[in-house]
Amino acid sequence: MLSVSQAIKQLTESAQVLIGAEVTEVIGARCRVLASDIRAAINVPPADNSAMDGYALRHADWPGCNATLTISQRITAGAVPQTLEPGTAARIFTGAQVPPGADTVVMQEHTTEVDGCVMIDPLPVIGSNIRRQGQDIRAGNVILRAGHRLRPQDLGLIASLGIGQASCYRPLKVAILSTGDELVEPGTEAGPARIYNSNRYTLTGMLAGWGYEVVDLGIVRDKPDEVRSMLLQAADKADVIVTTGGVSVGEEDHVKAIVDELGGIDLWKIAIKPGKPFAFGHVGETPFLGLPGNPVSVFVTLLIIARPFLLASQGACIRTLQPLRQRANFDKPNGPREDYLRVRCTDQGLVLYSSQSSGVMFSTSWGDGLVRLPPGQDICVGDLVEYYPWATYT
Amino acid sequence: MLSVSQAIKQLTESAQVLIGAEVTEVIGARCRVLASDIRAAINVPPADNSAMDGYALRHADWPGCNATLTISQRITAGAVPQTLEPGTAARIFTGAQVPPGADTVVMQEHTTEVDGCVMIDPLPVIGSNIRRQGQDIRAGNVILRAGHRLRPQDLGLIASLGIGQASCYRPLKVAILSTGDELVEPGTEAGPARIYNSNRYTLTGMLAGWGYEVVDLGIVRDKPDEVRSMLLQAADKADVIVTTGGVSVGEEDHVKAIVDELGGIDLWKIAIKPGKPFAFGHVGETPFLGLPGNPVSVFVTLLIIARPFLLASQGACIRTLQPLRQRANFDKPNGPREDYLRVRCTDQGLVLYSSQSSGVMFSTSWGDGLVRLPPGQDICVGDLVEYYPWATYT
Repeated sequence: MLSVSQAIKQLTESAQVLIGAEVTEVIGARCRVLASDIRAAINVPPADNSAMDGYALRHADWPGCNATLTISQRITAGAVPQTLEPGTAARIFTGAQVPPGADTVVMQEHTTEVDGCVMIDPLPVIGSNIRRQGQDIRAGNVILRAGHRLRPQDLGLIASLGIGQASCYRPLKVAILSTGDELVEPGTEAGPARIYNSNRYTLTGMLAGWGYEVVDLGIVRDKPDEVRSMLLQAADKADVIVTTGGVSVGEEDHVKAIVDELGGIDLWKIAIKPGKPFAFGHVGETPFLGLPGNPVSVFVTLLIIARPFLLASQGACIRTLQPLRQRANFDKPNGPREDYLRVRCTDQGLVLYSSQSSGVMFSTSWGDGLVRLPPGQDICVGDLVEYYPWATYT
Repeated sequence: MLSVSQAIKQLTESAQVLIGAEVTEVIGARCRVLASDIRAAINVPPADNSAMDGYALRHADWPGCNATLTISQRITAGAVPQTLEPGTAARIFTGAQVPPGADTVVMQEHTTEVDGCVMIDPLPVIGSNIRRQGQDIRAGNVILRAGHRLRPQDLGLIASLGIGQASCYRPLKVAILSTGDELVEPGTEAGPARIYNSNRYTLTGMLAGWGYEVVDLGIVRDKPDEVRSMLLQAADKADVIVTTGGVSVGEEDHVKAIVDELGGIDLWKIAIKPGKPFAFGHVGETPFLGLPGNPVSVFVTLLIIARPFLLASQGACIRTLQPLRQRANFDKPNGPREDYLRVRCTDQGLVLYSSQSSGVMFSTSWGDGLVRLPPGQDICVGDLVEYYPWATYT
């Protein structure tokens, strides 16, 4: 059996960025991956500005205790200040540009204004309450690297540098196919020994949430001509093909034979639970990922095994996910596979869903995340374990 | 000052579900909120089925050690079994329906097949290796409640029950306006003392990520006629209006006066950092949220204060977020406000970004989440603190 980390390594190392970059409006670039570095075009702040509401002056101009300075101008945020007249002070507000000639801002709580003049007590040290030009970001520096996947705050950050367009990879197109003669679409009568095709729904939701374009090819019956035609369509329309069911290790089915004929396929036994059978291949040049058929196995292998491959295929840098160590409020022995348990985080620690069967999709809906249990390692109540909230995988 | 929890309580209690429900295709319903309960129409599993590859038999039929049973049928997943002939066994595969007349499944590891007959050793207890009809979900039970916001796995769960359409509230329409004469759009020349409008980008990314429709009204100059016309447009086109900047406590600006004229407005001082000034009102019947102007304040108040209100307005149940207790690797004193610090979770605990200024948007891009620091409570290295990864707010 292949370990989970070996499987991820083999997959991501074989991943190629097959999609092109394009100039993209930053405002709509959430979930897109940068194809070039973002370099600051300006300083942030662009000029020295006041950190407080108060008064700007030249420190050396202060006449001493009980003396006053004439207020020679009023500077609000967004206004262009005049050079400060020697021996005077400027009324200034938070964020407003410090006038040339001033080197210190006195916060208004330490001042008294009377008849157009200001008394100051105490005077702070020179340079106080000024946010310096380029203090946060210096013009020319790289702010975000190529391969970074953009979150809403990144869009705001890029915009704050005056950048409205960036080079991003176009969204990955992922074709999904559900294989299995026993599958029926929801909304129809199931009939005896049939089951509803739920994997298509989970996959569509996950992939759309990651910002991918889903090419939904529906259910494929296990008939050679249908399978071949669907796989060729998928390879033609999409960057990656993801199937569920049918490609078990040792199982005799047409999908395996036909992917082999159209490109190549390897069947892996991955030491993961739920999961285990996993197929990796290609149809022509298009990568093919064959997930298991059980709904929870699909969900977990998509998150753990397929997601890093999809990210890499989209040009994204893969980072190791940071686990959150939380206390388990359950006992769980483990076998030789890496086990991904559906849990809920509560004030009393992590609680395990009663059925961890790979057929029980309710565990993923009830739970708010996964606990990773390394092979051969048991969990006892009170142990600190690796917890990954669902949202980790967004 | 209003505490953060008081502010959230007042807002969510005043929130009304202004939007209607509609029949929605479940496959595209990610981020939608259920308007009615989802009730299971079927049992899961729909019939008793085998938990293993093995042999199904009637326990009482076992002739004893070293005896064999004739294999009378072969049952794969999806096939409709025949009633088991008395005194025989059925070859059965995982997920396949247990034939009427059988009450036990023997896993294949405990069997030997010779010439169409099977030897069993040992025989398990009666009822073994059978997943019972309705064991996971019973027909008629409520599986998801009205007010639940749908995640991808929920779509899969609903589909697995044969349900292809559900009653959901339609997506919330949120109008956004950026106020401030100093604002310039990215991609243009800023000019002296101007700053780029980044809040529009952060807001659009966040709101789109939550599944809302963004009605982007751009920058509004502080001219009464323009402000009035934009606010009326916003109220007409959207369910909620969100503005950034301009509505500070005590500040004299037109937005405040005009919202008051068109409906009503309250200015709040919320004990939150970054943040504090926050306006809540309505333009006609349309709720109005006035966020601060600084980019980090916008980001934090959107997550902490505005998000629960938006969720409630969309018909979603508001749940208290479960904090993840992690160790701080920094010292931080706190004042009278609830402080939301930008941090990064590492193997060495939570690390604080060097500048917590509300103008430094880079802190939100560098960080992977927030630490909530209650008013007056200091943090020392090694303390367990409340950590909320960004993804908590998806």
